Amino acid sequence: MGESVFFFGEGRAEGDPKRRDVLGGKGAGLAEMTSLALPVPPGFTIGTGVCNAYLRTRSTPDPVRGEVAAALARLERSTAARLGDAAAPLLVSVRSGSRVSMPGMMDTILDLGLNDAVAEGLAGKTSAHLAFDAYRRFVSMHATIALGLPREPFDRALDQARARVAAARGLDGTRWNTQELKRMVPDSDLPAQELVALVATFKAIVKKGTGSDFPSDPQVQLWQAIEAVFRSWENHRAVVYRRMHDIPDDWGTACNVQAMVFGNLGPNSATGVAFTRDPSTGERRLYGEWLPEAQGEDVVAGIRTPLPLRAGARGGARPDESLEARMPEAYRELDRIAATLERHFRDVQDLEFTIEDGKLFMLQCRTAKRTARAAVRIAVDMAREGVISRDEAVLRVDPAGLEQLLRPTLDPQAPKKLLARGLGASPGAASGHAVFTSEEAEQRAARGTPVILVRAETSPEDIRGIDAARGVLTARGGMTSHGAVVARGMGKPCVAGVSAIAVSYESQTMTIAVQDQTGRAGEPITLHTGDVITLDGASGCVYEGAVPTVSAELSGDLGELMAWADVGRTLRVRANADTALDARVARAFGAEGIGLCRTEHMFFEEKRLRALREAILADDARGRVKALATLLELQREDFVAVLREMGALPVAIRLLDLPLSELLPTEPQPLQALARSLGMQASKVAQRSRELHEKNPATGHRGARLAVTFPALYAMQVRAILEAAATLREEGLDVQPEMVIPRAMAGAELDRVRALIEGVAGEVARAARVPVAFSVGARIELPRAALLAGHLAPGVDFFSFGTDELTEATMGLSRDDAGRFLPAYLEAAILPRDPFVSIDRDGVGVLVTTATEHGRTAHPGLKLGVSGAHGGDPASIDFFQRLGFDYVSSSPLRVPGARLAAAQAALRARGREGGHGSV
Amino acid sequence: MGESVFFFGEGRAEGDPKRRDVLGGKGAGLAEMTSLALPVPPGFTIGTGVCNAYLRTRSTPDPVRGEVAAALARLERSTAARLGDAAAPLLVSVRSGSRVSMPGMMDTILDLGLNDAVAEGLAGKTSAHLAFDAYRRFVSMHATIALGLPREPFDRALDQARARVAAARGLDGTRWNTQELKRMVPDSDLPAQELVALVATFKAIVKKGTGSDFPSDPQVQLWQAIEAVFRSWENHRAVVYRRMHDIPDDWGTACNVQAMVFGNLGPNSATGVAFTRDPSTGERRLYGEWLPEAQGEDVVAGIRTPLPLRAGARGGARPDESLEARMPEAYRELDRIAATLERHFRDVQDLEFTIEDGKLFMLQCRTAKRTARAAVRIAVDMAREGVISRDEAVLRVDPAGLEQLLRPTLDPQAPKKLLARGLGASPGAASGHAVFTSEEAEQRAARGTPVILVRAETSPEDIRGIDAARGVLTARGGMTSHGAVVARGMGKPCVAGVSAIAVSYESQTMTIAVQDQTGRAGEPITLHTGDVITLDGASGCVYEGAVPTVSAELSGDLGELMAWADVGRTLRVRANADTALDARVARAFGAEGIGLCRTEHMFFEEKRLRALREAILADDARGRVKALATLLELQREDFVAVLREMGALPVAIRLLDLPLSELLPTEPQPLQALARSLGMQASKVAQRSRELHEKNPATGHRGARLAVTFPALYAMQVRAILEAAATLREEGLDVQPEMVIPRAMAGAELDRVRALIEGVAGEVARAARVPVAFSVGARIELPRAALLAGHLAPGVDFFSFGTDELTEATMGLSRDDAGRFLPAYLEAAILPRDPFVSIDRDGVGVLVTTATEHGRTAHPGLKLGVSGAHGGDPASIDFFQRLGFDYVSSSPLRVPGARLAAAQAALRARGREGGHGSV
Repeated sequence: MGESVFFFGEGRAEGDPKRRDVLGGKGAGLAEMTSLALPVPPGFTIGTGVCNAYLRTRSTPDPVRGEVAAALARLERSTAARLGDAAAPLLVSVRSGSRVSMPGMMDTILDLGLNDAVAEGLAGKTSAHLAFDAYRRFVSMHATIALGLPREPFDRALDQARARVAAARGLDGTRWNTQELKRMVPDSDLPAQELVALVATFKAIVKKGTGSDFPSDPQVQLWQAIEAVFRSWENHRAVVYRRMHDIPDDWGTACNVQAMVFGNLGPNSATGVAFTRDPSTGERRLYGEWLPEAQGEDVVAGIRTPLPLRAGARGGARPDESLEARMPEAYRELDRIAATLERHFRDVQDLEFTIEDGKLFMLQCRTAKRTARAAVRIAVDMAREGVISRDEAVLRVDPAGLEQLLRPTLDPQAPKKLLARGLGASPGAASGHAVFTSEEAEQRAARGTPVILVRAETSPEDIRGIDAARGVLTARGGMTSHGAVVARGMGKPCVAGVSAIAVSYESQTMTIAVQDQTGRAGEPITLHTGDVITLDGASGCVYEGAVPTVSAELSGDLGELMAWADVGRTLRVRANADTALDARVARAFGAEGIGLCRTEHMFFEEKRLRALREAILADDARGRVKALATLLELQREDFVAVLREMGALPVAIRLLDLPLSELLPTEPQPLQALARSLGMQASKVAQRSRELHEKNPATGHRGARLAVTFPALYAMQVRAILEAAATLREEGLDVQPEMVIPRAMAGAELDRVRALIEGVAGEVARAARVPVAFSVGARIELPRAALLAGHLAPGVDFFSFGTDELTEATMGLSRDDAGRFLPAYLEAAILPRDPFVSIDRDGVGVLVTTATEHGRTAHPGLKLGVSGAHGGDPASIDFFQRLGFDYVSSSPLRVPGARLAAAQAALRARGREGGHGSV
Repeated sequence: MGESVFFFGEGRAEGDPKRRDVLGGKGAGLAEMTSLALPVPPGFTIGTGVCNAYLRTRSTPDPVRGEVAAALARLERSTAARLGDAAAPLLVSVRSGSRVSMPGMMDTILDLGLNDAVAEGLAGKTSAHLAFDAYRRFVSMHATIALGLPREPFDRALDQARARVAAARGLDGTRWNTQELKRMVPDSDLPAQELVALVATFKAIVKKGTGSDFPSDPQVQLWQAIEAVFRSWENHRAVVYRRMHDIPDDWGTACNVQAMVFGNLGPNSATGVAFTRDPSTGERRLYGEWLPEAQGEDVVAGIRTPLPLRAGARGGARPDESLEARMPEAYRELDRIAATLERHFRDVQDLEFTIEDGKLFMLQCRTAKRTARAAVRIAVDMAREGVISRDEAVLRVDPAGLEQLLRPTLDPQAPKKLLARGLGASPGAASGHAVFTSEEAEQRAARGTPVILVRAETSPEDIRGIDAARGVLTARGGMTSHGAVVARGMGKPCVAGVSAIAVSYESQTMTIAVQDQTGRAGEPITLHTGDVITLDGASGCVYEGAVPTVSAELSGDLGELMAWADVGRTLRVRANADTALDARVARAFGAEGIGLCRTEHMFFEEKRLRALREAILADDARGRVKALATLLELQREDFVAVLREMGALPVAIRLLDLPLSELLPTEPQPLQALARSLGMQASKVAQRSRELHEKNPATGHRGARLAVTFPALYAMQVRAILEAAATLREEGLDVQPEMVIPRAMAGAELDRVRALIEGVAGEVARAARVPVAFSVGARIELPRAALLAGHLAPGVDFFSFGTDELTEATMGLSRDDAGRFLPAYLEAAILPRDPFVSIDRDGVGVLVTTATEHGRTAHPGLKLGVSGAHGGDPASIDFFQRLGFDYVSSSPLRVPGARLAAAQAALRARGREGGHGSV
């Protein structure tokens, strides 16, 4: 066995299947299957090290060339055929295969080894059609991939050949496009003489493009193909994919050279894909599709409709078209192999197979992708079957998928017309009449009409419109823009940042820029108020009309999985919930408290908003006191409701963080209306609005700053919370209010707010008949707060990290505005991922780490939590687990996913501690 | 000598005058003067340690009481008088005195030792008026300070006594307020029987307020006074003052007990203050004021007009009223003592003296405060006289004062009516007609009328209005709000954040809320367009009408001082300059390059703005290319002008950092006008404006983000810079353009922009006949950039810190909006100083330090500079010197101050290295 090239075949594999780093995923699978004595066409894998050596020097080292020659000789012996031998031709595939799957990113060449003589020889042994069909495929593939020629001339020549065939049938193929031609004249309809002519045309294109003849020497072909596979490691899309998935550039790709088998060798041949369990439902039965007389690529090309493997499988095909019915022996062997592989790999496998003249060959096996629903069922089933442990089951399910399971989803079978695509900002499906103002949404919803609120972007004033709508569609804004956050909080589907949509409020229309598949602009589509659309908040798709939905239940399997997850979990999971209704949903999903109760939202209800405005606008202390007294009553009711719902679970209430500048309208008409309703002069209200106006409300007069400049407002809120708590304690409920001071930036500031809180608490305690326990924490959302955590920590009981805001400040991004350029940053891989989805570990994460360390050093008992978008993101949850946080808090629907992610993080942490690399 | 109490008198002092930490400033001065055998009334200083001990336990330790008793006995021997002895009464003053001067923050009690018997005795030895005037002063002072009673009843009783005297003269004093009464019936007019009655009334007030008699035992009085002085270390205003000046709480105050001397003992007595040189001009002659027959407090009380010390002194008094003329012997002794003290302390001294019956006593000496002008003259003179070294002269002048010297200032003699007070945001004085729009400012200025632009706040659209105005007044915004920054850059006076002003654009008026001295609201004043006002941009005062100004020259002394400063300086000083005119001013003030050339400002000129808007609005590539070509021409001219002005000095040009959202108008009328002028549909321009709108432009689509999404615009700018440089190089000028990439946040982002720059540079180099050198740097203004400095540094030649922006992001503050609450934060000492004036070392400073360390580690030759408000602030300059920065950059007028501050920082650094604690 050499250093760099690993033969597989004849029941033995030189390469160690565990060394995916050397063999790549495909090579490891082939080695594994060979070792298991499964029917795999023989071949050899050139290790990833060779790729790196080649990319450094642009030549393959001589010793490797020697190893390849030896492996090829062995392959020729094993197949009793020889590369370039017209009498006993060996054809091979040359495929890439890196350590982790990078689907479609790198190159593959099939049918290598053909030249004129070999094609004639193969034609004699099989058929002229098979031989020249393979030959023309090979020439165009090799020319474009190994020789670097553009694809287009080959496609055009093929189109012309199909058109000629069509013309011979009396049809005018010149009017059709490639897809249509392909459907009308499939490959199998191309006569051998056309294929022969195509090969000649293709070779002429090569001659014209490169100045040289197409290489007829299979050895030359082979080395060109191998080195092209290596080079494809560096093509643009592969580089971008690696950046996005944190795959190191120096891993390199392996190259697999394998004897070709032909699924199109006659009626006794076939090709197909199989899953050891149903990847859509998780059902424990062989699932898959096949095509008789076809090559592998035909199954996925969509020209011919593939047939089911099993006789009883779902789908429209007749039972007698199943592989089980038509080739029962091959089917039984496939079923046996599938079981063997699943048992061996301890997970569901995705298999590629070819049947050549009745003989089954396995071409690939890999861990199968699956839907969220299937993932849960498979994990739970396999644990019940004893194949994997419960901990492994917990680790097998992607937490991000759970949210989707808990929402109604679009019927995958239903016909749909895609209008545009944006960010899937809040999962779930919703259909309704498009409306462009919150007022319209409210009015129509009040009449029982389902509506979708469509806005260029939403603002806090839209809160009631969002509340009234079934779903939200915004032209601008990212995953954590206002509309997206509110929609997620309310559990409503939202598609955000659909840049193809332009909303016109004047004409009450939305115009959708349409692109065809080549990116060319088509006629724009204009929709009016009342036109029905459907949103898929998971995929970010917007469809025309009403697409039917299927409601997914929280199945028993998921419940069981969650119970297993909770066993090992150390990180508590809370929910962001602003109302008693939110709180109820959160508890149903297993939230262990509220991590963020935003009190601003409460103020947007009409009566409260009015009282707050009165307090801000009051001329004298008397007017202000009266308005605050009204607010106190209302807020106390709010807090009684939320605290009652959560019982003895902690409820972290963020004190008012509304920028004062957003409280008063700025437009003349609403200003006048407000002045009228308050009995004030319009000019005075307008002036106050101007005084409060801020250029950048995100960095404005809000949070703790209000406590310093307008302490009466904060005192009112604190009193409302503590009086609500006292009321419930008198009822015997052991409520646990936690007060969070937003926008903290200095120790003396916290001291001041804490003193205010303690002052009110003293008054409430004297009036109440029960002691009221509460705790006070700082919201860490400004970089300065993180940097000065050591100064802030001694004065508080806990830190509540607001990493959404911390991300905004640290990166200089606004969730509301970043949609204009953030997609370009992700596209160009300047940032590895959306920092509002998954915490930016390099930047924001450093601040969180600093704050955690300094905070804990200065105050050993300090409790640490995080709430916001990152509180529901698995990668971020892992980060917080590593830092030893006490809890994460996510939107209610993401609580189960967060529980699962927290369990996984704990299991991984235990794995690290125990040195169990495998967990 | 004891541990805690230090006697001074009889030509010897127990305390070491160098131990200001123990004796406090006042005690050290008294000890020093005593040791120099100057006539100082004897007394003793209780050390600061006793204060701390008292504050911990609220009692004075017994050993200290013993030491005080011993010192008092010695004082009694020394003065041949005894505390409480009616026959030979000793009266003492009890004064605070901390390590550094905290003027007026703590308490003092005079004339202690009086009771009924002692007063009678003193009356016999002096006069009944003197004795009972001292007695009534002592009782009220002791009652309010030591016994904690409110001041008001005592003042009322005094007012009533004055009113009685006035009534006796036939005047109705009941209609006058305290100040008027005091002027009409000065203390000297109060007859002895009224003073006797007042003492009785005051004692009755004490009895009523405390329930006990006023203490008649002088020992009791003494201990109450000493402990009251200690407690005054903890009063609110002292605590706030310490926070603001970074004075540790544990320094404590000393307490000085000293024999009283009386300047009101008859025609041969007097009191006064003296400066060893004129503190206003620096002239080397004794300067000061005196009052015959007066106590010290009368000189500053403003009831009687003090007289000049010297016969030939400036001011309105007659030469024969001078001390020199009236008491020539005492004057000569004072002049001799002044010279002795100045020589001894090697700096100008501020002296308090009293002449009791012809005998001169020194009561205090301390380093004199002086104007900026005097500071320069004194420092240079003293160095020339050989009293101090040139380095010491450099260290003696406050750099912050120099800017003021270079501006015209209000004539201090002129009468003024103060309208309101705000932040002195850009120094200098200006008078003009108030206007409320930039258009009005331009129109009137074009007619030659001086105008003051008054805005609620300014925006980039006001740039031409600011340009046209003599000065800027804003109701909102802090030291680095837009208007303040632009005004400073243009060298125009600006008063910002005048919260008492409300601007109404509708009525084109400003309304000023007026408060009287008690804080009660008066009738508001309304000013209209065209009303004349005067701004003092140094003090932040706004005056009615035109106040005359005096223009200050850059005197020869200052030039010489700057030359001395440059000798030892290591930190380069550059200027922020956007135009050739700015650049010329900057060079005149000694700038060694441009540290920040903001190209956004260039775009607000009409022709450029139009072309930029065309480029943004262009429908097709052709329109865009055309608009960019126009911009290229214009920008090339801009850069040729600026680079030519600076010759071989480096010019750091910040590439475009304009938020796109600020480029298009949002109001219907300007939108329509723009559309008309561009020949576009108004609805299209409006839509584009909406698309570009951002909620938070500070964190918007700008800087490097434009380079990623709109590379053609950046390429145009880079080409304009490099072509300008090539043109000048062909002329033989060795220009040094540096390109600064704003809003940097990721290494891959910098790679991309650098690649864009290198691409353009390659094209320019091929077309030019000369090589063009340039360097590329990253603007470090986002916290993420600072945190990831190690990733950013390898790809650039330098870091240009934008600490204004870094402060905004780190602290979650907006320079434009923070005026609404930042004053409250400074007032409450939550922040020690305005972070936009002096860098926030605890927060922002940590990020700068991190970035510096990581940047230098990753790229050892990395150049470091800072530009913005902190580049001209002495405290910040010291910080950057410590970090080893290469340069700071300030507005042109602050360059001399920055040079001086940099020199001081270097001298201090050398002092630290060399261990010379004294430098």
